[in-house]
Amino acid sequence: MPKVSQKTVGRLSLYRRLLNRMFADGARNVYSHDLARMAGGTAAQVRRDLMTLGHTGSPKRGYDVKELSDHIGAFLDAPDGQGVALIGVGNLGRAILSYFAGRRPKLAITVAFDNDPAKVNRVIHGCRCHPISELSRVVREQNVRVAILTVPAREAQSISDELVEAGVRGVLNFAPVPLRVPPGTYSEDIDMTMSLETVAYFARKGTVERETEK
Amino acid sequence: MPKVSQKTVGRLSLYRRLLNRMFADGARNVYSHDLARMAGGTAAQVRRDLMTLGHTGSPKRGYDVKELSDHIGAFLDAPDGQGVALIGVGNLGRAILSYFAGRRPKLAITVAFDNDPAKVNRVIHGCRCHPISELSRVVREQNVRVAILTVPAREAQSISDELVEAGVRGVLNFAPVPLRVPPGTYSEDIDMTMSLETVAYFARKGTVERETEK
Repeated sequence: MPKVSQKTVGRLSLYRRLLNRMFADGARNVYSHDLARMAGGTAAQVRRDLMTLGHTGSPKRGYDVKELSDHIGAFLDAPDGQGVALIGVGNLGRAILSYFAGRRPKLAITVAFDNDPAKVNRVIHGCRCHPISELSRVVREQNVRVAILTVPAREAQSISDELVEAGVRGVLNFAPVPLRVPPGTYSEDIDMTMSLETVAYFARKGTVERETEK
Repeated sequence: MPKVSQKTVGRLSLYRRLLNRMFADGARNVYSHDLARMAGGTAAQVRRDLMTLGHTGSPKRGYDVKELSDHIGAFLDAPDGQGVALIGVGNLGRAILSYFAGRRPKLAITVAFDNDPAKVNRVIHGCRCHPISELSRVVREQNVRVAILTVPAREAQSISDELVEAGVRGVLNFAPVPLRVPPGTYSEDIDMTMSLETVAYFARKGTVERETEK
């Protein structure tokens, strides 16, 4: 299997969801240009991404929707599934627990951590919540390799370090501060404040430019 | 003011938050290399980004923390503030309402929309929730230019079209489908499923590679 870029993996994830929705709507075949349009890319890019999987379509009928979705699944999903730990069961953490609950059998949040006594030892959206003091032990015991961080900015780096030390190799970080992780560990930051401020800035810039044109 | 890239605007947003945290911790001056380390970039990049603002530091003492934060604020924030509409008050929408509540006086979610009769006409995290049928009217009346979409994938594009028609020029989209917006409108997609599947894929790949090395 050749090296695959982060962007290709992300697009494969999107293609699968689009395919599953099409299948639910009754579609059985899809052309690369249709998939491209829905995904906001080009047909050439779709074909390149799918070649990464060794998947080729028939020029006449395009791709078989179900077959392609399964093929992407075999590529993206761990055969025996992957458990995910979520750290920080505040408003955002709870929303994310609920968002992913039951969505992907092979990639499920299986354990949560928080320091709030009102949450510890309770089951929240199907997840047992442990105190953060048990983070290392539980992550090791359950062999968790993927974590979602929904903790305040000040705590994010030290908790990430502890997770990596306990065997975590992928961190999805919602804390509003960039994480540093060692080589061999992958992290992605989702900074909602940065995104909203960027959207607001360009919304205003566009407005100003249009007003100047009058 | 020269054209500014999306990435520069995002980093300025991050610098401001880092500066405000430093200021709260008692720091009054900061060197570009310290800010760069916290932001996960280089000192040259920090200096380039700040030159966009026309901000220069003293080589001896670095930048004045408060002054720089204010300067970034004058660049990022609308002088009279910007209202934001949130559409879709499910678990994620509520979490985002709560996340941004009271955080930025100049960029606040001021109005929400949902079709659930249990939510309509109620005030949720300080925001009045209107039925989606009133979207166009309320957005026009309140002159809202920025929106956050937390609706199901199937509804996202048509609601985005309606928002743009009503004057919205920036959309932060959490629906798991890429949005198409016309030129002059800016949109950013936060696809949590894509991000989690990407993190999980590389967490596993890393593991496989390490195991092969043994």
